[in-house]
Amino acid sequence: MAKSRFEYVKSFEQDDSLLPQCWIVVRIDGKGFTKFTSAHKFEKPNDVRALQLMDACAKEVMREFGDIRIAYGESDEYSFIFHKSTHMYGRRSSKLVALTVSCFTGNYVRLWPQYLPNVTLQCTPTFDGRAVCYPTVEILRDYLSWRQADTHINNQYNTCFWALVKSGKTTTEAQALLKDTQTRDKNELLFSQFNINYTEVPEQFRKGSIVVRQRQRVVVKHGEDGTPVEREVSVPTVLHVDIIGNQFWVDNPQILS
Amino acid sequence: MAKSRFEYVKSFEQDDSLLPQCWIVVRIDGKGFTKFTSAHKFEKPNDVRALQLMDACAKEVMREFGDIRIAYGESDEYSFIFHKSTHMYGRRSSKLVALTVSCFTGNYVRLWPQYLPNVTLQCTPTFDGRAVCYPTVEILRDYLSWRQADTHINNQYNTCFWALVKSGKTTTEAQALLKDTQTRDKNELLFSQFNINYTEVPEQFRKGSIVVRQRQRVVVKHGEDGTPVEREVSVPTVLHVDIIGNQFWVDNPQILS
Amino acid sequence: MAKSRFEYVKSFEQDDSLLPQCWIVVRIDGKGFTKFTSAHKFEKPNDVRALQLMDACAKEVMREFGDIRIAYGESDEYSFIFHKSTHMYGRRSSKLVALTVSCFTGNYVRLWPQYLPNVTLQCTPTFDGRAVCYPTVEILRDYLSWRQADTHINNQYNTCFWALVKSGKTTTEAQALLKDTQTRDKNELLFSQFNINYTEVPEQFRKGSIVVRQRQRVVVKHGEDGTPVEREVSVPTVLHVDIIGNQFWVDNPQILS
Amino acid sequence: MAKSRFEYVKSFEQDDSLLPQCWIVVRIDGKGFTKFTSAHKFEKPNDVRALQLMDACAKEVMREFGDIRIAYGESDEYSFIFHKSTHMYGRRSSKLVALTVSCFTGNYVRLWPQYLPNVTLQCTPTFDGRAVCYPTVEILRDYLSWRQADTHINNQYNTCFWALVKSGKTTTEAQALLKDTQTRDKNELLFSQFNINYTEVPEQFRKGSIVVRQRQRVVVKHGEDGTPVEREVSVPTVLHVDIIGNQFWVDNPQILS
Repeated sequence: MAKSRFEYVKSFEQDDSLLPQCWIVVRIDGKGFTKFTSAHKFEKPNDVRALQLMDACAKEVMREFGDIRIAYGESDEYSFIFHKSTHMYGRRSSKLVALTVSCFTGNYVRLWPQYLPNVTLQCTPTFDGRAVCYPTVEILRDYLSWRQADTHINNQYNTCFWALVKSGKTTTEAQALLKDTQTRDKNELLFSQFNINYTEVPEQFRKGSIVVRQRQRVVVKHGEDGTPVEREVSVPTVLHVDIIGNQFWVDNPQILS
Repeated sequence: MAKSRFEYVKSFEQDDSLLPQCWIVVRIDGKGFTKFTSAHKFEKPNDVRALQLMDACAKEVMREFGDIRIAYGESDEYSFIFHKSTHMYGRRSSKLVALTVSCFTGNYVRLWPQYLPNVTLQCTPTFDGRAVCYPTVEILRDYLSWRQADTHINNQYNTCFWALVKSGKTTTEAQALLKDTQTRDKNELLFSQFNINYTEVPEQFRKGSIVVRQRQRVVVKHGEDGTPVEREVSVPTVLHVDIIGNQFWVDNPQILS
Repeated sequence: MAKSRFEYVKSFEQDDSLLPQCWIVVRIDGKGFTKFTSAHKFEKPNDVRALQLMDACAKEVMREFGDIRIAYGESDEYSFIFHKSTHMYGRRSSKLVALTVSCFTGNYVRLWPQYLPNVTLQCTPTFDGRAVCYPTVEILRDYLSWRQADTHINNQYNTCFWALVKSGKTTTEAQALLKDTQTRDKNELLFSQFNINYTEVPEQFRKGSIVVRQRQRVVVKHGEDGTPVEREVSVPTVLHVDIIGNQFWVDNPQILS
Repeated sequence: MAKSRFEYVKSFEQDDSLLPQCWIVVRIDGKGFTKFTSAHKFEKPNDVRALQLMDACAKEVMREFGDIRIAYGESDEYSFIFHKSTHMYGRRSSKLVALTVSCFTGNYVRLWPQYLPNVTLQCTPTFDGRAVCYPTVEILRDYLSWRQADTHINNQYNTCFWALVKSGKTTTEAQALLKDTQTRDKNELLFSQFNINYTEVPEQFRKGSIVVRQRQRVVVKHGEDGTPVEREVSVPTVLHVDIIGNQFWVDNPQILS
């Protein structure tokens, strides 16, 4: 069989390797999750189980791909930041996106029963993805700030929206009430009508999830006499803290070094 | 919170839309499947259950994305051919790759218990992916021929290799015996030593899986008196046939029309 | 001197090779030619000397790059069509654009005194350029039709505009008079007010310039007795004919074969 | 005439805009200049007139494109560094390359008689070009160091080579003598055989040409009484200095600021 006669088709693959020495962000995003969350009756405005499932998947992705330095998640999206010097898969954009989104999705389905044990998966969740390059640490930090600012804005809106809906408003009425309101207006609405102090809403919802590698002592085996043998290893860990200000980066210089 | 101050980072996303009027092939490929198949004790050279799982996932992908005209699978890889005129997700390469690979992986994990009911999933399967453009039907057919020729070559080699190994050779010995052999030599080896007539090996293994949409009458609901109501719908269907020759394409002109 | 320490910077060059088996159009376009033409007092609406200079440059480009099959020019722009199978400079977009535009510009300055002998070049003409891929002959022909249709529309408008201006209207008045007029209106205006039958305007202006290679007998040397020795060679030749209809392509099948 | 029917072909133009906030280097390079220099009998190893012509063209390019901060030239190549924040032509790679190479080539032909007044241009010089992105000032400086190191290596080799050839060696003999020699060997050869102290070779040849904008007082007009009116303007100026070390950049912080 003339294999060689057909092999020329390989030459149509075009190089999509990303510019060297730029930070690479792979962002994945749930496809059609409005429908997906309602089909599975996710709690509103935030479903802790679903967020923890997202975080668990992100940790698996970071275990799989060592060059990811930090990840940031909110709602049904997650951004993974590969170190600027990574040579993983020749920095080919499609490979990085495909592997990240595949690893995430596979874990989402696999870990589902662990985080939503009483909810049957009705359909297969799907995520899209993209890769973006950032030439400097400053711009990369602005990227992360952009996502965390987005989390704040969305969460504040959703907290108001669902409080109104749960109080009996229709979704259309709730939207109309929130139209053109500012941060201050929404905080007042929450406090005056629902006795919710927005600053007391859990940081998990207000700050999103930051996944970084932290040194932990873990038991790696047991000796013959049963004594646990510990070793310090690097473990993906989820935080809910501010990353827009400087403090986090001053405290954790190794992340983007 | 100054959202706008950070939004400029969106401008770093670069357009990766694929050339209009070209056929788009998204090929996905299992990552580290040598290890994955041995961890799950897949039968060698071919595990029917695993191949059927792959086919089931491909059918789900085709149900999800209507512009896929045909798919071709072998071993742990699958190629999905999007019609040249598709406008799906603006023909953005990263979106098409991400969604295809995500949908496939999610289904692989979700449908696993159905196809390998007695095998516990040990780790999360991951697939990589890429998108390639082909400007004409002729070159696209050469692409499909390339993959099917590859299936033949791999399957014939693997059939010999595992027959030798099962007969007591080490993997090194088996490799040495097959080095530089031609198609004819391998067929003779299979017949003389193992009484295997290669042309009688199931077409599923020799031809791979072709998934096309076929018109089928299906029961869509039942009337008040219980009478089934049928409608003709288009259903992704798996075939194991030759697609290198002309006959298949003469018989199925609608696929690439 | 540590050369090697710096050579890593080469790795930042990204591959921009164009999809195989697609027709490549390199279109160049005069930068700021409104100012350039008025600085050199080009005749309006068309300056034959300037158009012939453009054509001469296009012929030089075609002599330099044998894989160009046809070129089409109008006003201060020219499109060069490289055969779909060209391997010139690895089909790298930047190389093809740079060499085409450089060859054209160099000849424009060099041949200027030959075509505009009494006009001193006041400033250096500059052209921009781009490369575009077309997957099939049909779409490539639509590209060429697009340019020739554009020539017609522009030339008809300009013929009217300059007739009005030369008759005493201001440019603003001329623009106002032509606003929203159709082909038929413009033809009537030309005939009734200026006694110009548009179909008698030279085809050079109405059809633009098509450059193709034609077989010609040329004297390649002279024998000892002075007898000219002829040989048939392929020579870039300028035509002003319709290329939107089929006839031209039926008569010249070799161009896009 | 149905213009709109063809206009869809515009959609085949693919976006090639370069990553924001990266330094853009457009490097142009003479095509076939070995032949070109010998056709015009350029002096070897360096022809001052030809180098000055190159420098003059580079200055014109910098006058035309204000976002170029520095240019570096050697032999028949020139690199133009656009500021990382340039928005010129939407940062489209093909536009930047085409306009740079076109402007350079046009000036090369136009200024030729001024720099090589007694040499008739035999053929049209052509340059190719490419655009490369560098994410940081450090890497950009390494790029410039790479080119200047290259100048040194080439010039030292060529100085030896042509000294040997002019002394009666064939080009093959000269190549053989220089094979595998180090910097020290070449310096000794020059000194012992030709009494040339390499460090006394003009910096123009050893360092190449750096073009930067310098503030100069120029006469912009004359008053009614004939008094010259001066103004300080920024003028592209050619230097032949070291740019590998720090000093130049310490002294000229504005270039890459």
